[in-house]
Amino acid sequence: MRYVSIELNGKPALGVRNQQGDIDVIGAESLESLLAAGTDLASYAKGRKATQTVKAADARLLPPLSRPTKIICVGLNYADHTAESPYEQPDYPTLFLRLHTSLVAHDQPIIRSKLSDSLDYEGEVAVVLGKGGRYISKENALDCVAGYSIFNDGSIREYQFKAPQWTVGKNFDGTGGFGPDLVTADELPAGAKGLKIETRLNGKVVQSASTADMIFDVATLISIISEAITLEAGDVIVSGTPAGIGWARDPKLLMRGGDVCEVTVEKLGTLRNPIKDEA
Amino acid sequence: MRYVSIELNGKPALGVRNQQGDIDVIGAESLESLLAAGTDLASYAKGRKATQTVKAADARLLPPLSRPTKIICVGLNYADHTAESPYEQPDYPTLFLRLHTSLVAHDQPIIRSKLSDSLDYEGEVAVVLGKGGRYISKENALDCVAGYSIFNDGSIREYQFKAPQWTVGKNFDGTGGFGPDLVTADELPAGAKGLKIETRLNGKVVQSASTADMIFDVATLISIISEAITLEAGDVIVSGTPAGIGWARDPKLLMRGGDVCEVTVEKLGTLRNPIKDEA
Repeated sequence: MRYVSIELNGKPALGVRNQQGDIDVIGAESLESLLAAGTDLASYAKGRKATQTVKAADARLLPPLSRPTKIICVGLNYADHTAESPYEQPDYPTLFLRLHTSLVAHDQPIIRSKLSDSLDYEGEVAVVLGKGGRYISKENALDCVAGYSIFNDGSIREYQFKAPQWTVGKNFDGTGGFGPDLVTADELPAGAKGLKIETRLNGKVVQSASTADMIFDVATLISIISEAITLEAGDVIVSGTPAGIGWARDPKLLMRGGDVCEVTVEKLGTLRNPIKDEA
Repeated sequence: MRYVSIELNGKPALGVRNQQGDIDVIGAESLESLLAAGTDLASYAKGRKATQTVKAADARLLPPLSRPTKIICVGLNYADHTAESPYEQPDYPTLFLRLHTSLVAHDQPIIRSKLSDSLDYEGEVAVVLGKGGRYISKENALDCVAGYSIFNDGSIREYQFKAPQWTVGKNFDGTGGFGPDLVTADELPAGAKGLKIETRLNGKVVQSASTADMIFDVATLISIISEAITLEAGDVIVSGTPAGIGWARDPKLLMRGGDVCEVTVEKLGTLRNPIKDEA
């Protein structure tokens, strides 16, 4: 099942993508509220009647979840990306957090701040939890996953490195592309492993890898994070980016107003965001 | 006005501290919902009748806000603390984020993880926003502050330094002491500046400083953060700790089960947390 959060007549609505790629609207519930209630998303939409269908071209998407309970991002989770970074490969996940205020939906613009021209892309797989807990074993970890989506972890590099913590550079408003669909886990290989992930800037491939190359795979991330932090239904784990970021190139490749950035993950679809200069 | 969030008959309730130090219960609203609705906390409780009074000794406090919209923490914000750390003093605020799952109330135990014995204290002033926005000028920044509280930014040092980002070491469940009261801004000097802040472990003073020594004062923090991030009513900014942390001592001073850690801030009160070993 592929869930899509949309704005319909000025209000949020929930749909599922049909075989034509259009959106069958099934209600006004948010994925946040369904997940918090313990709903099994793989079966929830089955047999629910569509109240209307919105053509894909006419739909205004929202992020699958606009206010996740947590957004836990993983840095340095592909060895080739760590190699292009100023860091050694740590033997423990490098985690940072995002705020809901940084999220933007599919087809909505990622904003290039007027304070810096160092806006960079990072294509990633997002993991949405349907169950949580503490001390989740690696064996049970994938039972906690409701589904997967795509993330563009847009980063303002100059701000990421102004201080020892990356927080600001990872949290500018309008920099975290998220969507388009939440694809339930039953439609994907276990842990979304072995999927091709590709980022394109203005049509040119700039990142291309397999999710099999994650250093800490999805099950391991959930298990390790839950040793410290109570995970909850509605949490999102953004699983890291492979090599090819613009900041590591010579000359640097940075995104500008008018550019279009796309992240395609096999079986998940394509997250597309135009880049817009801040007014 | 001094607001206190408490648990009463198993449910959250809101009170104000009376002149005897006890808690006059005024309703069931949360500070989160009042702030989100734009309520002026300095005047809200005036003239509201207490439905009952709970003796301070009998009250089970909750964090002033159990689910802040954001918890933005500031590292390296006192020069003497930066000097005892492995870092150079950055000329931009060092920000990291906390999750609501890490919060503990006044008088509730801070948990020493069974995974590490490196639990350390950090006494800090917490700033609670009543208004938000983007590009807030330094001149207007303090108008956004609803009030102040106390924070013990309990840190699992080994995990803080396992990877380049501090996130995990700052987000173990039950490590972020927060409370006891939310004191409205009108009861304090502007920006809570020039207040004595003192941390005691088992009665022994381990941190003692003035909030006047913050490198980035409260107004500056709000203004700078809002250049990147939309701030909102209900956001909490935890403003940094002065020198004296246990990890920088020789030999290291770490907290153990049975210890009691107190953070006193002039005019704000004392946040007290026993330390408990994880089961």
